[in-house]
Amino acid sequence: MKTIQIINGPNLNLLGKREPSVYGNESFKNYLEQLRIRYPQCHIEYYQSNIEGELINKLHEIGFSTDGIILNAGAYTHTSIALHDAIKAITAPVIEVHISNVHARETFRHVSMISSACKGIIIGFGLDSYRLALESFLTEE
Amino acid sequence: MKTIQIINGPNLNLLGKREPSVYGNESFKNYLEQLRIRYPQCHIEYYQSNIEGELINKLHEIGFSTDGIILNAGAYTHTSIALHDAIKAITAPVIEVHISNVHARETFRHVSMISSACKGIIIGFGLDSYRLALESFLTEE
Amino acid sequence: MKTIQIINGPNLNLLGKREPSVYGNESFKNYLEQLRIRYPQCHIEYYQSNIEGELINKLHEIGFSTDGIILNAGAYTHTSIALHDAIKAITAPVIEVHISNVHARETFRHVSMISSACKGIIIGFGLDSYRLALESFLTEE
Amino acid sequence: MKTIQIINGPNLNLLGKREPSVYGNESFKNYLEQLRIRYPQCHIEYYQSNIEGELINKLHEIGFSTDGIILNAGAYTHTSIALHDAIKAITAPVIEVHISNVHARETFRHVSMISSACKGIIIGFGLDSYRLALESFLTEE
Amino acid sequence: MKTIQIINGPNLNLLGKREPSVYGNESFKNYLEQLRIRYPQCHIEYYQSNIEGELINKLHEIGFSTDGIILNAGAYTHTSIALHDAIKAITAPVIEVHISNVHARETFRHVSMISSACKGIIIGFGLDSYRLALESFLTEE
Amino acid sequence: MKTIQIINGPNLNLLGKREPSVYGNESFKNYLEQLRIRYPQCHIEYYQSNIEGELINKLHEIGFSTDGIILNAGAYTHTSIALHDAIKAITAPVIEVHISNVHARETFRHVSMISSACKGIIIGFGLDSYRLALESFLTEE
Amino acid sequence: MKTIQIINGPNLNLLGKREPSVYGNESFKNYLEQLRIRYPQCHIEYYQSNIEGELINKLHEIGFSTDGIILNAGAYTHTSIALHDAIKAITAPVIEVHISNVHARETFRHVSMISSACKGIIIGFGLDSYRLALESFLTEE
Amino acid sequence: MKTIQIINGPNLNLLGKREPSVYGNESFKNYLEQLRIRYPQCHIEYYQSNIEGELINKLHEIGFSTDGIILNAGAYTHTSIALHDAIKAITAPVIEVHISNVHARETFRHVSMISSACKGIIIGFGLDSYRLALESFLTEE
Amino acid sequence: MKTIQIINGPNLNLLGKREPSVYGNESFKNYLEQLRIRYPQCHIEYYQSNIEGELINKLHEIGFSTDGIILNAGAYTHTSIALHDAIKAITAPVIEVHISNVHARETFRHVSMISSACKGIIIGFGLDSYRLALESFLTEE
Amino acid sequence: MKTIQIINGPNLNLLGKREPSVYGNESFKNYLEQLRIRYPQCHIEYYQSNIEGELINKLHEIGFSTDGIILNAGAYTHTSIALHDAIKAITAPVIEVHISNVHARETFRHVSMISSACKGIIIGFGLDSYRLALESFLTEE
Amino acid sequence: MKTIQIINGPNLNLLGKREPSVYGNESFKNYLEQLRIRYPQCHIEYYQSNIEGELINKLHEIGFSTDGIILNAGAYTHTSIALHDAIKAITAPVIEVHISNVHARETFRHVSMISSACKGIIIGFGLDSYRLALESFLTEE
Amino acid sequence: MKTIQIINGPNLNLLGKREPSVYGNESFKNYLEQLRIRYPQCHIEYYQSNIEGELINKLHEIGFSTDGIILNAGAYTHTSIALHDAIKAITAPVIEVHISNVHARETFRHVSMISSACKGIIIGFGLDSYRLALESFLTEE
Repeated sequence: MKTIQIINGPNLNLLGKREPSVYGNESFKNYLEQLRIRYPQCHIEYYQSNIEGELINKLHEIGFSTDGIILNAGAYTHTSIALHDAIKAITAPVIEVHISNVHARETFRHVSMISSACKGIIIGFGLDSYRLALESFLTEE
Repeated sequence: MKTIQIINGPNLNLLGKREPSVYGNESFKNYLEQLRIRYPQCHIEYYQSNIEGELINKLHEIGFSTDGIILNAGAYTHTSIALHDAIKAITAPVIEVHISNVHARETFRHVSMISSACKGIIIGFGLDSYRLALESFLTEE
Repeated sequence: MKTIQIINGPNLNLLGKREPSVYGNESFKNYLEQLRIRYPQCHIEYYQSNIEGELINKLHEIGFSTDGIILNAGAYTHTSIALHDAIKAITAPVIEVHISNVHARETFRHVSMISSACKGIIIGFGLDSYRLALESFLTEE
Repeated sequence: MKTIQIINGPNLNLLGKREPSVYGNESFKNYLEQLRIRYPQCHIEYYQSNIEGELINKLHEIGFSTDGIILNAGAYTHTSIALHDAIKAITAPVIEVHISNVHARETFRHVSMISSACKGIIIGFGLDSYRLALESFLTEE
Repeated sequence: MKTIQIINGPNLNLLGKREPSVYGNESFKNYLEQLRIRYPQCHIEYYQSNIEGELINKLHEIGFSTDGIILNAGAYTHTSIALHDAIKAITAPVIEVHISNVHARETFRHVSMISSACKGIIIGFGLDSYRLALESFLTEE
Repeated sequence: MKTIQIINGPNLNLLGKREPSVYGNESFKNYLEQLRIRYPQCHIEYYQSNIEGELINKLHEIGFSTDGIILNAGAYTHTSIALHDAIKAITAPVIEVHISNVHARETFRHVSMISSACKGIIIGFGLDSYRLALESFLTEE
Repeated sequence: MKTIQIINGPNLNLLGKREPSVYGNESFKNYLEQLRIRYPQCHIEYYQSNIEGELINKLHEIGFSTDGIILNAGAYTHTSIALHDAIKAITAPVIEVHISNVHARETFRHVSMISSACKGIIIGFGLDSYRLALESFLTEE
Repeated sequence: MKTIQIINGPNLNLLGKREPSVYGNESFKNYLEQLRIRYPQCHIEYYQSNIEGELINKLHEIGFSTDGIILNAGAYTHTSIALHDAIKAITAPVIEVHISNVHARETFRHVSMISSACKGIIIGFGLDSYRLALESFLTEE
Repeated sequence: MKTIQIINGPNLNLLGKREPSVYGNESFKNYLEQLRIRYPQCHIEYYQSNIEGELINKLHEIGFSTDGIILNAGAYTHTSIALHDAIKAITAPVIEVHISNVHARETFRHVSMISSACKGIIIGFGLDSYRLALESFLTEE
Repeated sequence: MKTIQIINGPNLNLLGKREPSVYGNESFKNYLEQLRIRYPQCHIEYYQSNIEGELINKLHEIGFSTDGIILNAGAYTHTSIALHDAIKAITAPVIEVHISNVHARETFRHVSMISSACKGIIIGFGLDSYRLALESFLTEE
Repeated sequence: MKTIQIINGPNLNLLGKREPSVYGNESFKNYLEQLRIRYPQCHIEYYQSNIEGELINKLHEIGFSTDGIILNAGAYTHTSIALHDAIKAITAPVIEVHISNVHARETFRHVSMISSACKGIIIGFGLDSYRLALESFLTEE
Repeated sequence: MKTIQIINGPNLNLLGKREPSVYGNESFKNYLEQLRIRYPQCHIEYYQSNIEGELINKLHEIGFSTDGIILNAGAYTHTSIALHDAIKAITAPVIEVHISNVHARETFRHVSMISSACKGIIIGFGLDSYRLALESFLTEE
C-alpha cells in the first residue's frame, strides 16, 4: 500500500477563508477527508507550514521513504531555490501542484523555481489538482 | 456521453520516432488506442497538424460543441498568440498538456503563451499527461 | 476604379461570436456588405485565413496589382517577421488596422512586427478602423 | 454642430520648415485652412504649445465640453505619463495622431505613453492622419 | 510658527472631478480648508501647476525659507530628474506624498525619480497622506 | 478602544545596536514605551521575528480581529511574495513602514513585494514612521 | 549518388523580384538550374513554402532518407521553435543558409532559433551560400 | 562678428548656491561676465529656463539665425526627446555641455537623449565646459 | 584561543547523502571532526538550520562575541537580503564559503546577495573551502 | 594568382590539443598543409596570435593588398569592437569562420561583434569551415 | 613648460585612410604637426597602439609625471575595464576624446567604460576634439 | 616538489602604488618574497602582464606542466572569454583570486567570465588571497 505525502506551503492553511474568488471556499481539511474516502487504497499524509525551512525539513524527513509527494509550495514556488535543492536532494518523486491558474495572475507568479526539479506539474484545476497528482502516483506501475 | 478532443501540434506526429530520450518511444496512435479502451465512457477524437493555422481552424470547428479539449501545442506553445486568442474565442474548456517537463529543458520552453487562456495545465508525465487531463474532464460534474 | 483588398488574419473569422466585449458583436460579413454599399466607387476584395503562410501567399498574389491593402493580421501582428517581409516584398501600399485598442490590452499586444513596413496604422476604432483605412486609399490622388 | 479640437505638441509649430523629408513641407496653418473648407459641418479649434503642462491645461479647459480631441503630442507621446493622466481625467474622447510612421524611426519613438488612454490611434498618413481622425468623429452617431 | 508649503503637480487641480474611483470625489480646495482649520498652529501655503518647470520655480522660490514642503508631483514623480535635482538643490525638507497606492496601479507608476532626494514618503492614504506629512513636520523638534 | 498590532521583521530586534548611522541608536523597546504613553487611547501590541513564516503566522493569528497592522517587514519586503499573500488573505488593514529611506539605498531595496497589498506606505521618517501609521489608524472614522 | 534537398521558406519564392538591393535580382529557379548543371554528381531536390507547418511536413517527409538538407527558413529562422524541433527530430543533417548578411540588418534578424539544431551555418554569400552548403555535403566522406 | 547663444536648463539658475561640491560655488552670472571680457570678438547671448517647452521655444526663436548654440539642458538631457527634436529641427549647430562628469554620477545621468542630435559634446570641465564649446565655434572657419 | 563558528544553511544537513556528484559523499559531521583534530588551537562551533530566520538568529546570538564566522548559506545565498542585513548588523567578520563551484552551475546560482557584506569569499574547493576560511581567520594577527 | 590570408585568434594555436571533443584532434598546421596541396591555384598565408591588437596589426598590414581574409577570431569574436572596426577600416573582404557550432554552446558565444562587418559567415563545419571560405573566394569572378 | 601626452588606441593609425566619411581624410601625423606649431608653449608627446595592454603600459609609464593625457581609446572605450583601472591608478589627469559623435552611431558605441575615471570628455568635433582637450590643459592654473 | 605559478593581470604591477585604500600599500614583489620564505616546500613562479594575449601565452606555456596556477586576471576577469577558453584548454588547475571584495564594488566587477572554468575562487582577503590559494594546492594529495 502506497503512502503519499501532501505538503502545503504558506497561506494554504487559510484555504476556504482566503480570497475565495481565487482559491474557492472549501477548507483543505474537508477536501482531504473526501480524498481519503475516495482513495482507500493508499495512505495520504498531510503537512502544512508557513515556514520555508520547515517545508524543507519535512521533505528531508519523509523524502527517502514515502512513495510520492504532492507539493503546493504556495508563494515559495516563485522564489525558493532552497526548496528546489531539497527536492533534488531527496529520492521520492515530487509533483508540483497549484490550485489557481498562476499563469493567469500577476507576472511574479509565472516563474517557478521548483518546476525543473519536479517529476510533473499540475496547475489550475482548483483542489482537483491534488487528486490528479494522486491519480498519477497511483496508476504508475 | 462526453466527447473529448485531443489536439496535437507540430512534430508530435513523429512521437515514438523523435528524440526517444525526451519523448519516449511509444507512438501516439498506440497510446490513443489504449486510452480509448481504458475510457469507454467517452468519445475521444484526435487531430494533429504541424500547421499553426490548422490547429486554430480545428479549435474553431469543434470549440463550440465538444465537451473538452486536450491541447499539446508543441513548440507553438511558446510563441503563438494566435492560439491563445483561439482558445479564448471558443467556449469549450482547454487543458494544456506537455509530455516532457518543459521547465527542465531550454529556457525558450519555459514560457507558454497559451497557459493564461487555458482551464488547467499538466506537464511532464509523459503520455500520462493526456490521461490526467481526460480524468479531469470526466470527473467534473 | 480602384481595387482595395481587405485581408483578415487569425480568429477574425469568428468576429461577432468571439469575445464580444472586446471585438463587438457584428460579423465581418455584415460589415463588409455595408462597406461595399457605402463605397460603390471601388471594388473591395476580401480574404481571411488563420494560416500565416496563406496570408503571405495572398499578399504575394495581389500585392503587385491591387491599389491598396487593408491588413488586420490579428495575433500574427505581434510575432510575424515573415509578414513584415511579405509587406516589404510587394509594391502595393499596406495599411495595418486593429479593431480594439491593442495598447490598452496585454503587454504582448503592444509590439507590432509589421508596423515599420506599412504605410500607415489605424488602431482602436472598432470595425470603423477598416473604413478609415479605405478613406485614406480613396482620397489619395 | 460638433466642435473638434486639434492639439499639437512640441516642434509641430515648425511644420513645413522642420526636417521636410520626415514631416513634409506644408505648414500646419495652410493644412488647417483646407481642412476647415472641406469640413464646413464642424468647428475645428486649434492649439499648439511646446510646453507639456500647457497641453495639459488645454485638455482640462476644453476636455469636458468639446466633442472630440485630435492630439498629436509629438515627442511627449513617448515620455509623458502626465498627458496620459490628463486624457484619462477628461470626458471628451481623444484620438492620438502622428504624421510620420513612428514605428519606422528610432526605437525610442516606438513606445507611446498615451495610446492606452486614447479612443483610437492613427499613424503615418502625413497630415492626412488628422483628417482621418476628423472623419472618425464626424461619422459617429 | 511654521510655514508648510503644499505643492501639487499635474492633473491634481481636477481632484474630485477626475477618476473618482481612484482619487476620491473631494476637491483639494475643500480639503485644504479643513486642514487649515484643524492645524491652526501653522501656515499652510498651497501651489499647483501642471507645468514641470513651474513646480521647479516654486521649489526654488520657497525652498530656502519655508519650514517644510509636501510635494505630490503627480505623474512627474515617475519621470522627472529635474524635480529630483530641484529637491536636492534647496535646503527645506521635502516629503513626497501620493493619494492613491501607486504600487497597486500600472507598472510605470512603481518607479519614483524623486524618492531618493526626499526626507520621507507617504503613499496611499487618500487625501490623508497630506495630513500625515503635516503631522511629521509639526511634531519634529 | 482600538487594538493596533506592530509587527517587525528580520534584524529589527537589533535596533539601536545595528548600523546606527542608518537606523538610529534608539532601541525599539524604548520607542514602543513612549508610543504607548503618547497614545493611551489604544492598545499597541508588538511582535518581532526573524522568521518569514512566523511573520505570516502572526498575520494569520491577529489578521481577522485586530483593528490595524503596522508592518515593517525589513528585508523580506523586497523578496517575499508569501507575505504579500498573507496580507491579502487577512481582513485587517496593513500599513507598510520603513525606518530609513529605502529608495536612497541599494537598488535591491527599491522594490517592495508587499506594497501593492497594503493600505498605505510610510517610508524614511526614522522611528516616527510607526507613529504616523498609528496616527492614520486612529484618525479614521 | 547523393540526394540533397533544398528547402526555402517564406518570401523566397519572390527572389529576383523582392528587394533586389538586399536579395539580388536573380530568380531561384535560374540559380537552381545552374547549380544542377554544375553539380551533376548529385540530385538536387527543391521545395518552397510560405507556410511554417508545410516546411515541417517536408522536413519530416524527406528527413529520414535524404543525404542532406539545405534550409533557408527565411523569417521563420528568427521565431520558429517548431522548425528547431523538426530539425532535431529527423536524422538527415541540416545546413542553415542565408542569402544576405542577417547580422548587418535589423536586430530581430540577429537571433536564429534553428542554428543550435543545425550541423552548420552559412550566411551572407548571396545565392552562393547554397552552393557552399552543397560543397560541404559533397566533400564529406 | 559671430553670435553665440548659451542656453541653460533646469536648476542651473541656482549655480553657486546648489550642491557646491558637485557644481562649484561660482554663479553663472559672474562666469558669463568673465567670458564676455575674455572673448570680445563675439556676442554671447544667454537664456535660462526651468521649463522644457521654453527651452524649445528659445531654440526655435534663435535656431535659424544664431551662429552657434551652447546647450546645458540639465536634467532634461536624460529624458527629453522633445529637445532632441528641437535641435534637429533648427539649422544652427548645437554643442551639448555639462559642468560635472555625469558619467561618474547616478546611472540615470549616463544616458543623453540629445547627444545624437548635437554637433559635439563637452562634459566634466566645470564651467570651463562652456568656454571650450565657445572655442570650438570661434576657431571654425 | 579563538572561537570560530561554522554556520550551514539549507540542505547542507544532507551532505554525503545529497547529489554526491555535486557535493561529494562525506558527511559534514565526519569532516568537522577531522577539522577539529587538525586545528586544536581553536574552538570550532557548528550550527545548521534549514530555516532562514534561524540562521539570522544564530548570527545575532554569536555575532558580537565570536572571533569569526564561516557561513555557507546554501541556496539562501542567492536570494536572502535578510541574511545580508544580519551580516552587516553584527561585528564579527563573516567568510562566505561554497562547496561546489556555483559559477559552473545554473545561472540563478551566479548571484550572491551576501557577498558584498562579507569579509571574503571562498568557492569551489569542496569541503576544503571551510578549512581555507579557517586558515584565513587563524593566520590574521 | 590570388593570395588568401588565414588569421586565427586566441587559443587556436592549441588546436588538436585543446578540448578535442569540441575542436577535433587535428593540429591546424597539418590541416593547412593539406589545404595548400588541395588548392595549388592560390597562395595561402597563415597568421595566429593570442593578442587582440596583433590581430588588428595583421589586418592593417595585409588588408589593403591581399585578395581575401579568412578570420577565426576565437573568443574575441564575441567581445571585440576593435576587430569590427579593423575589418571595416581595410579594403579586403573578410569571411568570419568558426570550427564549432557556437550557437549550440554557451550563451556568451551566440553574439558576434564582427559579423556585421564581414562579407560572409561560416559556422560549425569543423576545420572544413576554412575550406568553404576558401571556395567562396576562389569561385568569385 | 607643460608636457601633454596624446594616446591613440586601435585603428587610429589608419586615420585619413579609414572610413573617411566617418573619420575625415587627414592623417593624424599631419594634424599633430599643425598642433605643435599652433601650441609652441607645450611639449606634445604622441603614442599609438592597437594593443590594449600597451596602452595601459604607456599610461603607467608617463602617468605619474606628465601634466595631462589626451586619450582616444577607440573601440576599447566601450569595453575596457582594464583601461578604466589604469586611468584610476595613475595621478595625471586624463581627458577622453572622440573624433566622431559616438552617440550618433551604433548602440554599442554609446557606452564608455572609461568616462567615469576621466577628468572630462570631448566628443564629436573631428580632430578638433584633441585641440579642445589641449586648450583645457593649457588654460588651467 | 610542486611548482605553483602566480599570474597577475592588468594594473597589478602598480600594487602598493595604485589606489592604496582599495588594494593596500604593499608591493607584490615584497609580498612574493615573504610567501617564498613561508612556503619553502614549493617553487613559486611569478608572471605579470597588462596584455590579455600575453596572459594567454603564459597559460599555454606553463599550463601543461606546472602543478597549479593562481590567477588574478584583474579587470580582464570581467570581460575576457579568451582567458576562459585558455583556462579550459590547459590541464593544470587554476584558482581565481582577487585582492579586494569585487562584489562590494562597481556592478561591472560582479561578473566573472573565468570563474566557471576555474577549480576554485578566493575573493577579498587582500594579498592573503594568494596564500590561501597556495594552501589549497599544497594540502591536496
